[in-house]
Amino acid sequence: MAYGLLLMAFKKINMRERIKHIIETEQQNYINELMEFLKIPSVSTDKSYLKGIRDAADFLLAKLKMAGADKVELFETKGHPVVYAEKCIDENLPTVLIYGHYDVQPPDPLELWNSPPFEPTIRDGKIYARGACDNKGQLYMHVKVLELLTKLNTFHCNLKFLFEGEEETGSVSLSTFIQQHAEMLKADVLLISDTALISNEQPAIITGLKGICYAEIEVSAHPCDLHSGIYGGVVANPANALTKILSRLQDDAGKIMIPGFYEGIFPVTDEEKKAMNTAGFKTEGFDPLHLLQENETYTLAEKTAFLPTLDINGLCSGYTGEGAKTIIPSSAKAKLSMRLVPGQSWRKIARSLKAYIQHIASPHIKVELRILTACDAVLTPVHSKAFRAASTALSQTFGVAPLPVRIGGTIPVVRMFKDILNIPSLLMGFGLDSDNIHSPNEHFGISNFLKGIETVPLFFEHFALMNKREMVFETRTQLNVQ
Amino acid sequence: MAYGLLLMAFKKINMRERIKHIIETEQQNYINELMEFLKIPSVSTDKSYLKGIRDAADFLLAKLKMAGADKVELFETKGHPVVYAEKCIDENLPTVLIYGHYDVQPPDPLELWNSPPFEPTIRDGKIYARGACDNKGQLYMHVKVLELLTKLNTFHCNLKFLFEGEEETGSVSLSTFIQQHAEMLKADVLLISDTALISNEQPAIITGLKGICYAEIEVSAHPCDLHSGIYGGVVANPANALTKILSRLQDDAGKIMIPGFYEGIFPVTDEEKKAMNTAGFKTEGFDPLHLLQENETYTLAEKTAFLPTLDINGLCSGYTGEGAKTIIPSSAKAKLSMRLVPGQSWRKIARSLKAYIQHIASPHIKVELRILTACDAVLTPVHSKAFRAASTALSQTFGVAPLPVRIGGTIPVVRMFKDILNIPSLLMGFGLDSDNIHSPNEHFGISNFLKGIETVPLFFEHFALMNKREMVFETRTQLNVQ
Repeated sequence: MAYGLLLMAFKKINMRERIKHIIETEQQNYINELMEFLKIPSVSTDKSYLKGIRDAADFLLAKLKMAGADKVELFETKGHPVVYAEKCIDENLPTVLIYGHYDVQPPDPLELWNSPPFEPTIRDGKIYARGACDNKGQLYMHVKVLELLTKLNTFHCNLKFLFEGEEETGSVSLSTFIQQHAEMLKADVLLISDTALISNEQPAIITGLKGICYAEIEVSAHPCDLHSGIYGGVVANPANALTKILSRLQDDAGKIMIPGFYEGIFPVTDEEKKAMNTAGFKTEGFDPLHLLQENETYTLAEKTAFLPTLDINGLCSGYTGEGAKTIIPSSAKAKLSMRLVPGQSWRKIARSLKAYIQHIASPHIKVELRILTACDAVLTPVHSKAFRAASTALSQTFGVAPLPVRIGGTIPVVRMFKDILNIPSLLMGFGLDSDNIHSPNEHFGISNFLKGIETVPLFFEHFALMNKREMVFETRTQLNVQ
Repeated sequence: MAYGLLLMAFKKINMRERIKHIIETEQQNYINELMEFLKIPSVSTDKSYLKGIRDAADFLLAKLKMAGADKVELFETKGHPVVYAEKCIDENLPTVLIYGHYDVQPPDPLELWNSPPFEPTIRDGKIYARGACDNKGQLYMHVKVLELLTKLNTFHCNLKFLFEGEEETGSVSLSTFIQQHAEMLKADVLLISDTALISNEQPAIITGLKGICYAEIEVSAHPCDLHSGIYGGVVANPANALTKILSRLQDDAGKIMIPGFYEGIFPVTDEEKKAMNTAGFKTEGFDPLHLLQENETYTLAEKTAFLPTLDINGLCSGYTGEGAKTIIPSSAKAKLSMRLVPGQSWRKIARSLKAYIQHIASPHIKVELRILTACDAVLTPVHSKAFRAASTALSQTFGVAPLPVRIGGTIPVVRMFKDILNIPSLLMGFGLDSDNIHSPNEHFGISNFLKGIETVPLFFEHFALMNKREMVFETRTQLNVQ
């Protein structure tokens, strides 16, 4: 028995060393391939990038096939296609479904990029490109893990890969897709690498995600812009009216004024607060002027984890070019996102927002409210096998145990898999909050990319082991019962 | 004496008939030339149109020379050039300085034009093009009047022409130009055709113009857009902050909240109110929903004439493309114009606005206020010789006496000539409020264009006559005194 354990330990070390060796040998290829992938402008929110979306999906299909997947398939949806692949070894092994998205945020404002968003450039050990971290870089780690395990011919779990092209537009087609392919997608856990480490020295596993309610408000009055001298003070000004509406959504202290907005929010425990404050909130690089105060109840780290938010994401009306143009705009538009916490219902909030806006709006304008994307918040299981397996894997590669943290971001797919197939998620990401995702000069550290490729196979190994142990335990329990 | 009067009357009729005859014969040429002029994209507010500005100035130089001007000259300024011309017959005759502007408003939003803004098109007897009415069409009437009088060889007044290229950007270089060329520009009256008739049946002479204070407010916080999930509720949102500021500039009833804004406003007489209500305010074509209510004190016609206004002219922040982008914008910008009435000082108001914004703005953002263009309101003399001469001329060509009205528009040059050279202005325009100036599908009626060419020479004639009578009267008075 002692000899058996020693052999197992030796085999494991040997396995880790072999993985490390392959990564060392292959890293330049990994990086080159990722750069190719990042060159493809796969912006999902803007129709003019349709070709980029298609090219990115095709790129993944080819790479998954080359990496050793048994089955590779492109599924058309009403929106952008889903890329799916499998490597299923043994039905007795646990199955990990890996989710990623190959679509990216729009790159504008272009003038703030130091190198073009779709011409990936390496500076200081980081790859700069739109999607470098969110999510092409993190997604591509898993493609390379598949290749690596094929090379080693060592699979502890069955692997399924689902890469969608609509994450940045709210994963609109995905819920139908999941419903239609429930059998194919069956898995023990959904693994997602679309989040961040605390730092390169301190890993994290995300245990809570915010929901979202993203709305577009359009105020209109006239079929065209009007002369502000002739019509000023006599006809409604949609831009004036829009600012009135928006200013009443939140008070000066930041409290959101939509009736019932805070109803039903789950209470936060002291333990959760403690974990968040240990993780902390990095304010480096920010002018202290621009940081909103901590209040008596919440630190900044707690605010980002536990409080719902309301942010105007865009404003557009009338003349915005150089110099002066004296017009009353025909219409005015705002994009608005609310990040929701566990217990809030986006459906209730959207209804309340609509009624509230109708109530506070000037009677002289027309207001339209459109919900562009929405989902409720999720809390992922903290003491699950997947969490423990990931915790062990991350401890091995980082030399320190990961912190469980709740974040302010939203990944609608997590909610979908829970609601539709009851598959729990594991959020293990390798980016950094400072990677400028959704902003100009997005980047992803090369060491982060490689660390992901090194960690994920270890997770598979520990996850399989924990499932095996549990099977033994369950068998024993059953025996006892008999 | 009776014979002399008869002869004079006959000569006048003869003169009018000859003018009408020439216009009838030449009208197609007049229209074709105006169409050529309108093809030139002379947008002053946007640097990418610099060539259009230059071409429009050159076009005018050539046409003024051909029309018979003695002196034609292009004056460079720090901004766009001034086109100047003269036809001075006799220093004993009164001198009329004709002002116009060859620059136009930007044409956007382009998609709302039924025909391209710089491809003039005739529909239903109207020329559609940017600048058709404001001001190229009205300016060009005067060039054709010069040609016509040269053909008739009948000048009752000395004529000077000053055409600038910066009216739509606040006539920034003009005040220096006027100061530098005070002697050259000496005149008895400044004639401007840049206003509208009440209708094609009812002419108007504008006796009051509003002032303006046009500001750009920029709120900034971050060097780039930030992820609204990671940073929402923790860092300042410039778009949220901007809407808060803007919403506090005016209360829900439309009262402007900038401290001291209404101070010093000249009271309005019942006669002025009566004249405005006779002129009326045309609300046809407007959905009644979008008209702000008349209040207990003011009708719509009175509001547009006598009340200062505050309109947001443009809003711009963050993501404004298709779909959703979940960012906290790095900055947010608004363009804002206040139309001022006689008694208000734009300098005082700009200072007060700046202090007020600093006072109401969130402490977590930076705010910059830039005044892009500004001037105070003017009241032009109602019972002057010029007014009476114009009234007689318009009565002849329209068959009805013009109404004296105050309007909500702003023509900075009127104020400048009064302040710098003490030259009174006469505002006799031939457009219509429905001509869509500053908007898509701007147009100018061909009959309006021709009516202007017919009326202006009669004004010169009456103006000269009134000056002559006054000279006789003054001479007599002097004799009596002796």
